[in-house]
Amino acid sequence: MAETNLQVLLRRRPKGEPVPEDFEIVETPVPEPKEGEVLVRAGYLSLDPYMRGRMAEAKSYAKPVELGAVMEGRTAGEVVASRAPGFAPGDTVAGGYGWQRFSVVKAAGLIKVDSQEAPLSANLGVLGMPGLTAWVGLEDIGTPKPGETMVVSAASGAVGQVVGQIGKLRGCKVIGIAGGPEKCRYVTEELGFDACLDHRGDLDAQLDAACPEGIDVYWENVGGAVQAAVFPRFRDFGRMVMCGVISQYNVAEGADSFGGAPGPNLGPVVRKRLRIQGFIVSDNGWPRYPAFRKQMLGWMAEGRMVWKEDVVQGLRNAPQAFIGLLKGRNFGKLVVQVD
Amino acid sequence: MAETNLQVLLRRRPKGEPVPEDFEIVETPVPEPKEGEVLVRAGYLSLDPYMRGRMAEAKSYAKPVELGAVMEGRTAGEVVASRAPGFAPGDTVAGGYGWQRFSVVKAAGLIKVDSQEAPLSANLGVLGMPGLTAWVGLEDIGTPKPGETMVVSAASGAVGQVVGQIGKLRGCKVIGIAGGPEKCRYVTEELGFDACLDHRGDLDAQLDAACPEGIDVYWENVGGAVQAAVFPRFRDFGRMVMCGVISQYNVAEGADSFGGAPGPNLGPVVRKRLRIQGFIVSDNGWPRYPAFRKQMLGWMAEGRMVWKEDVVQGLRNAPQAFIGLLKGRNFGKLVVQVD
Repeated sequence: MAETNLQVLLRRRPKGEPVPEDFEIVETPVPEPKEGEVLVRAGYLSLDPYMRGRMAEAKSYAKPVELGAVMEGRTAGEVVASRAPGFAPGDTVAGGYGWQRFSVVKAAGLIKVDSQEAPLSANLGVLGMPGLTAWVGLEDIGTPKPGETMVVSAASGAVGQVVGQIGKLRGCKVIGIAGGPEKCRYVTEELGFDACLDHRGDLDAQLDAACPEGIDVYWENVGGAVQAAVFPRFRDFGRMVMCGVISQYNVAEGADSFGGAPGPNLGPVVRKRLRIQGFIVSDNGWPRYPAFRKQMLGWMAEGRMVWKEDVVQGLRNAPQAFIGLLKGRNFGKLVVQVD
Repeated sequence: MAETNLQVLLRRRPKGEPVPEDFEIVETPVPEPKEGEVLVRAGYLSLDPYMRGRMAEAKSYAKPVELGAVMEGRTAGEVVASRAPGFAPGDTVAGGYGWQRFSVVKAAGLIKVDSQEAPLSANLGVLGMPGLTAWVGLEDIGTPKPGETMVVSAASGAVGQVVGQIGKLRGCKVIGIAGGPEKCRYVTEELGFDACLDHRGDLDAQLDAACPEGIDVYWENVGGAVQAAVFPRFRDFGRMVMCGVISQYNVAEGADSFGGAPGPNLGPVVRKRLRIQGFIVSDNGWPRYPAFRKQMLGWMAEGRMVWKEDVVQGLRNAPQAFIGLLKGRNFGKLVVQVD
């Protein structure tokens, strides 16, 4: 077979916003699996904001991608060759590695998925890392209770859409925040949030109107001005689940510095007994994946969990799509259909 | 008996720092207990920073003291008359109410204390609300583990001195922060902290030297510049136990506004998986008082828990002592010996 591998490499570390020249697209030979490994052909590649951190030199919670190495990412696809028990050519799997057509991965990192249960790409979103992130963050930190008010930033994004739907399933009043009327319409009409506020408008006034009673749970995907508007509205015993601060990832010094802009005065944390907590799903999330998947598939089968994907065609378009993701240009979970 | 009650009332709400004219000292008749109540003569009155919040009009986690009412506080003293089973004249008790010589309180709020076990005044400090605050905050939020580095602000204060000693008992390296060489010497030599930093000096340089490995647990009593110096030094999975922000209590608008000064950028909360949490001991602390008291008495008997009190003579001096407390002029747990 004359096929080649197609790969997107990190050519240089971005200064501020990534540009296409920070990436390099190359064709290379298809790798071969060793004992215990599996060769996966990607059907879809997941693009996620955390990847901006891996492009920076500074050590964050995970090592940076080395210059000249393939960009980090997860794919879902099909087994082409296997030297590991339990995987055979034709199996559909999640857990392929990198912005590339073919990857060789250890069997331990692969999950066999049933293409009858859900579309392959869903394993990168609602059933994948973003969905697990939503589930774990709410279970461990957000702990939403019936009748509480939850606010979700980046509400139409990969994580936000799942967070808000779980909030509704838990009996909360759920307010989304998104960019523009189209996303907001989707958040209320399709995802079933109680309201969605456009952060391009006067967020203070919209929050006053949407949740005059205050906020019990805030899911933070964004930081910056959205955080500043939400923070003073916490009720006693409010929880701020810090999943990401995408507005800060493109600061000049790279994702690790998170900019110098100050945050809220923390005095009210005492008076209101707030809990502000960050988490990374890879710390303790994956051992809980089977329980998560079972619950999500149940909700999906009942029609109580819907999702939206933004599918970009072709791996060569991944850099531009990723650049757009950091600017909020995607609409729903961003995946690349790998050619 | 010709005795009268001596009371300190709230005459007016302070603007910024309280001044003596905000208080009024009056003599009134000794009150009489009704059925189920006990008349307590105070031996000691506890003065604590939270009282600044009660002087402000704004609702905080508890109702403000009304103008003309006796200032809120807890006393330890002796039962003078009782109409409640279980309490008899001569019993020593903690739980008397207010800045006053005599108080009538419901029996349910009183704790009988053994004057052989500890000095009466200790029931307002190391064995009282401040000690319980330290114990609960570390148990629920700080969760110190052997080998971790703990930083304690207001280290020689009522809560801080207990926090740091528990940290040492839990196997932590403990760094105090206090104001001036005398307090710092006490913190290291008497309380046994590993180091104590003077916040009047260059706190950044001192923190660099004292904990180059970073900080796992920060006990926040202070806010402001101390918080700003500590915050960037958190290690992954660090915990910030927010007990108070005394540097902000005297802002012009009263304790509830907590000033407008911004806080730290919260981006690192995600990357480092930090937990920032506020608490108030009265939320869930008192049901655990017996377990706390037993443990503290054990440590005290073994000489592993020491404490320092700053005893002011005479109730008429309580306003000036409280004004000094908010400026850090006390040295150790501040109590008034009630005449």
